[in-house]
Amino acid sequence: MKERVLSGMQASGLLHLGNLIGALRNWVHLQDKFDCYFFIADWHALTTGYAITEMIKKSSEDLILNFLASGLDPKRCVIFQQSRVLQHAELHLLLSMITPLGWLERVPTYKEKKFELEDRDLNNYGFLGYPVLMSADILLYRAKYVPVGIDQEPHLEITREIARRFNHLYNTKTLIEPEALLTEFPKVIGVDGRKMSKTYDNALYLSDTPKLIETKIKTMKTDPARQRRTDKGDPNLSPVFELHKIFSSDEEREFVSNGCRSAEIGCIDCKKILIKNVINVLTPIWERREVLKSQGILGDILKEGNDKARITAEETMELVRVDMKLTL
Amino acid sequence: MKERVLSGMQASGLLHLGNLIGALRNWVHLQDKFDCYFFIADWHALTTGYAITEMIKKSSEDLILNFLASGLDPKRCVIFQQSRVLQHAELHLLLSMITPLGWLERVPTYKEKKFELEDRDLNNYGFLGYPVLMSADILLYRAKYVPVGIDQEPHLEITREIARRFNHLYNTKTLIEPEALLTEFPKVIGVDGRKMSKTYDNALYLSDTPKLIETKIKTMKTDPARQRRTDKGDPNLSPVFELHKIFSSDEEREFVSNGCRSAEIGCIDCKKILIKNVINVLTPIWERREVLKSQGILGDILKEGNDKARITAEETMELVRVDMKLTL
Repeated sequence: MKERVLSGMQASGLLHLGNLIGALRNWVHLQDKFDCYFFIADWHALTTGYAITEMIKKSSEDLILNFLASGLDPKRCVIFQQSRVLQHAELHLLLSMITPLGWLERVPTYKEKKFELEDRDLNNYGFLGYPVLMSADILLYRAKYVPVGIDQEPHLEITREIARRFNHLYNTKTLIEPEALLTEFPKVIGVDGRKMSKTYDNALYLSDTPKLIETKIKTMKTDPARQRRTDKGDPNLSPVFELHKIFSSDEEREFVSNGCRSAEIGCIDCKKILIKNVINVLTPIWERREVLKSQGILGDILKEGNDKARITAEETMELVRVDMKLTL
Repeated sequence: MKERVLSGMQASGLLHLGNLIGALRNWVHLQDKFDCYFFIADWHALTTGYAITEMIKKSSEDLILNFLASGLDPKRCVIFQQSRVLQHAELHLLLSMITPLGWLERVPTYKEKKFELEDRDLNNYGFLGYPVLMSADILLYRAKYVPVGIDQEPHLEITREIARRFNHLYNTKTLIEPEALLTEFPKVIGVDGRKMSKTYDNALYLSDTPKLIETKIKTMKTDPARQRRTDKGDPNLSPVFELHKIFSSDEEREFVSNGCRSAEIGCIDCKKILIKNVINVLTPIWERREVLKSQGILGDILKEGNDKARITAEETMELVRVDMKLTL
């Protein structure tokens, strides 16, 4: 029997190339190797986006579309929407009873996120409880592995602590301490040279048009030393080259690198190659997005996935309720 | 159409005469006048009793037995178990996103309870969120009235604040601000003269045997001035007389009052009258408890009530999900 993997994406923005390279493509690879559950974390998005739920809806629709367009196959993995499986809320509530406030206040992302989103009022109970909800998501499926980035490790550690506390308090083995499935992915840089992120407004989105991708890349900053076409440059000082590292072939990368250093090519030439390659990656996704939209089957696919997820979740909750003696 | 009333009892101990006089008897009166939803608050009991869930189970069984034995009729009101209607957890989670931590820390019972139960570790996330769960319970049924004691008013006020915040944020009228249904009941004194409470270990329980009721009342303290049978006493200094005020007739009360002041009767005589009257109140409940136990129908009654409650709860949640745009 395959080991179980659980992962979700927060519905707090449109999916961009960083998400595709850093997570979604990996999910597609995992779906045959593991018993995979992938979900749209729309309740999670409420922790910071409770006042902008129109965006959460838009993001959720974008996520399911991109999950499928990028190669997740509902026959080979379970794709579902968190908010349609009420057992997530049930386990979240039960775990909230045994989770010390101190553990939550200690999670590093708590203060970081608050600082990062200082224009939003995040002094809410639910925002503090984010790690409890994330723990419930994972523990509900008794997942062995969670593919996470290094920055998510503290959340996984608190999930393990909560599982241990539950198992100890109720003298059981029901909850399974998840392990990180750490895979190294190249960091995808945004058009401003910082990490690609919806927060920085520097992302190339899977829902962008070819025209928009072209414009975004064309207006990217390059090595400031290349004021004129004839000035020689250093590709390592240009964020465009960072993207070439991910999207271009070795030959192309050598060509633009040499051309930049010798001023044999201009920045526009360099960018045109990147544009072509990014559009090559996105074109099949764009095509499948259009087909999926015209078919009108997203609702049915999600419903089926929600039903499957609910069955697995309910199996765990039946054990949890017995452990906690909540059955009459 | 009848207005809706919602009330619950926390499954954190056996039901005693104070609960019967102060709440349950009132519920029995309300069930024909209003559209009533009464529930066993087992999830609430976890906020302080997460480490002693055997007691929560025992208490839940005692509650349903006493609800029915005291005259609640599942044909005239909806009787259900909180933990079997997952929508409570769903609404709790959603409301957690919009509830400021400051509101929760300000609830007076938060610090009081922590102090009262200082032998338990209550520094948990769920304990802090108690008022959010209580608000979800009420708002989920769009109840107009909640029969509460004066000490519960702050919880009702925070429920109204949360409802207002939700309706304002999502530009809706879905959640209904509940009003208190304040009814004055005599305060029932425990065998030690303090308020009858499971916490003080001074209660007369509906599950006690006649023999135990007799023993508990016989060992009650009376006016300390009556050292000997011939010493005159003051009934107002005796907790026994406090119970006579609730359970005995005017004639009996005059008889024991005069007898105490004149020393014409002894404390045992006075107590015997009280014992008779308390046992008279409890006997029909005891009889119905035995019948109900032998019938083995409690599970079915609860299941039917849970199903009814779930339908009403789901109606509200469908509105809430649309308000928050959590539908795909």
